[in-house]
Amino acid sequence: MVRDSDVAVKIRDVTPRDGLQAGEPVSVDGRVDLAIALAAAGLTDIEAASFVSAAAVPAMAGADEVFARLPRTTTTWWALVPNERGAIDALSAGARHITVTVSASAAYSAKNVRRTPEQAIAVLTDIAVFTRQQPTVLDAVVSCAFGSPFADVRNREPVISVIAGIVDALPEARITLADTTGTATPRRIDDVLSALPNSARVDLGLHLHDTRGTALANALWAIDHGIARFDTSTGGLGGSPFAPGAGGNLATEDLVLMLDDLGIATGVDLDAILCIAHSLEGLVGYPVPSRTSTAGALPVFERS
Amino acid sequence: MVRDSDVAVKIRDVTPRDGLQAGEPVSVDGRVDLAIALAAAGLTDIEAASFVSAAAVPAMAGADEVFARLPRTTTTWWALVPNERGAIDALSAGARHITVTVSASAAYSAKNVRRTPEQAIAVLTDIAVFTRQQPTVLDAVVSCAFGSPFADVRNREPVISVIAGIVDALPEARITLADTTGTATPRRIDDVLSALPNSARVDLGLHLHDTRGTALANALWAIDHGIARFDTSTGGLGGSPFAPGAGGNLATEDLVLMLDDLGIATGVDLDAILCIAHSLEGLVGYPVPSRTSTAGALPVFERS
Repeated sequence: MVRDSDVAVKIRDVTPRDGLQAGEPVSVDGRVDLAIALAAAGLTDIEAASFVSAAAVPAMAGADEVFARLPRTTTTWWALVPNERGAIDALSAGARHITVTVSASAAYSAKNVRRTPEQAIAVLTDIAVFTRQQPTVLDAVVSCAFGSPFADVRNREPVISVIAGIVDALPEARITLADTTGTATPRRIDDVLSALPNSARVDLGLHLHDTRGTALANALWAIDHGIARFDTSTGGLGGSPFAPGAGGNLATEDLVLMLDDLGIATGVDLDAILCIAHSLEGLVGYPVPSRTSTAGALPVFERS
Repeated sequence: MVRDSDVAVKIRDVTPRDGLQAGEPVSVDGRVDLAIALAAAGLTDIEAASFVSAAAVPAMAGADEVFARLPRTTTTWWALVPNERGAIDALSAGARHITVTVSASAAYSAKNVRRTPEQAIAVLTDIAVFTRQQPTVLDAVVSCAFGSPFADVRNREPVISVIAGIVDALPEARITLADTTGTATPRRIDDVLSALPNSARVDLGLHLHDTRGTALANALWAIDHGIARFDTSTGGLGGSPFAPGAGGNLATEDLVLMLDDLGIATGVDLDAILCIAHSLEGLVGYPVPSRTSTAGALPVFERS
């Protein structure tokens, strides 16, 4: 079993971005306060905003204002960008950690960014022209990596093909495999991991959604197989609470609770996260979906 | 990773008992129809009723009527009994598979059955006097096996002590470890399993609750460590939906979905379970908590 105090898992909390993007817009003040609270709770990596068109994603308007007001501390603030325009804006706003999504699903890619996966990789390369002008970390997030709601990722081939394309075009990029609609299972993750080029496995991350209650089981299995970087959302926000079957991200508090009990360091304070999770209900206007935020921390059960 | 078509996991669905006991009473007709539907979905083991005082647990009134109307097919129908009276009633009603709860938590035991754990083991022995008169299978369910809401199961000692007492008094009994309030983690399960007497490990079962979103991760870990028997509830019902932090059972559909994808046989038809989960909302009057019942089955992702 995973059990080693030397093992550390790095959590990137994506609440201000993935957690809020699909809902009613939250003010810049509210999003900055949330990001600062997450940092105070011990999260070293936070996806704070998305530099997309406000017309396309109203909840992400004012990303530049958000970034302008984030404290320049040791926290790593991530910005999602969809294209060169977004990359230029994000860099201008001071972002030095950039996520870019490339989908393994052609149908999802067409619907979301009106590009084929190959075109999305070309855009990623174009983005890198700008990010390379600064000391920037680029994280390529491969969406629909374990199945697609449009049934066009029927096995690992399109996933491996997109990853190979990214590795080829941008060897410096890190890879995060995204379970966009919560279709990952330990078997599917195993299937994809076992075909990855070695270079893609360096600092590989997982972005899990809990659409079918599998997110924590997937995380446990992945940690046991050497994955040490995860995206989570406090309260389990993410997706749309109004779309049947959407399903939020793996909840930060669910992962931290399990890792605390396993003795795996994250640096995150569970009680502080639970406080934030409870406050989110006021911010978004509906109860957050994570079970731990309702139930609270574990009663003690000492290690023998 | 767990991946073996020869591995089989046996699921006991406890919806008609644990899933319904805390809510508004459902008619005998409704409970019998539910039990029969679960059997038709491929569940070989179903906990159909609890032979408790109707004054104490109104939702379980008419357990004898339920049992009288269950078809005498190959399905194994389980009855929970709290004492000798319940055992006599259950045997009279035709039950030959009996569950009896013994808590590792003294405070929980006092609150629920007004006995110490030692007295509960003595009652189990008294019950066995009757069950031994018939070819009966007795399953001793050890509650609060991974922590107690009353903070009096602070390590595995009281759990191991209760299990040793059961094994000593009733060597023929099977043991099921119950995570009554969803405090189990892989580490806690490991801690308890590693101290069990060998005899208790034979056909050991786990009864998991998803109070903190950990149930499926716990099941995955346990399956990977040789546990092959689980209690689940369709829709993830169980506990009280009106008590903050109660949390339902591990959902039958969540476990079956993951095991189907892992290629581990259960004999259970996921689509049929999802139909039942959807119908439960009408039966209990509130949405069932399982995420899979909302999201539905997985899109295909073939094994490589």
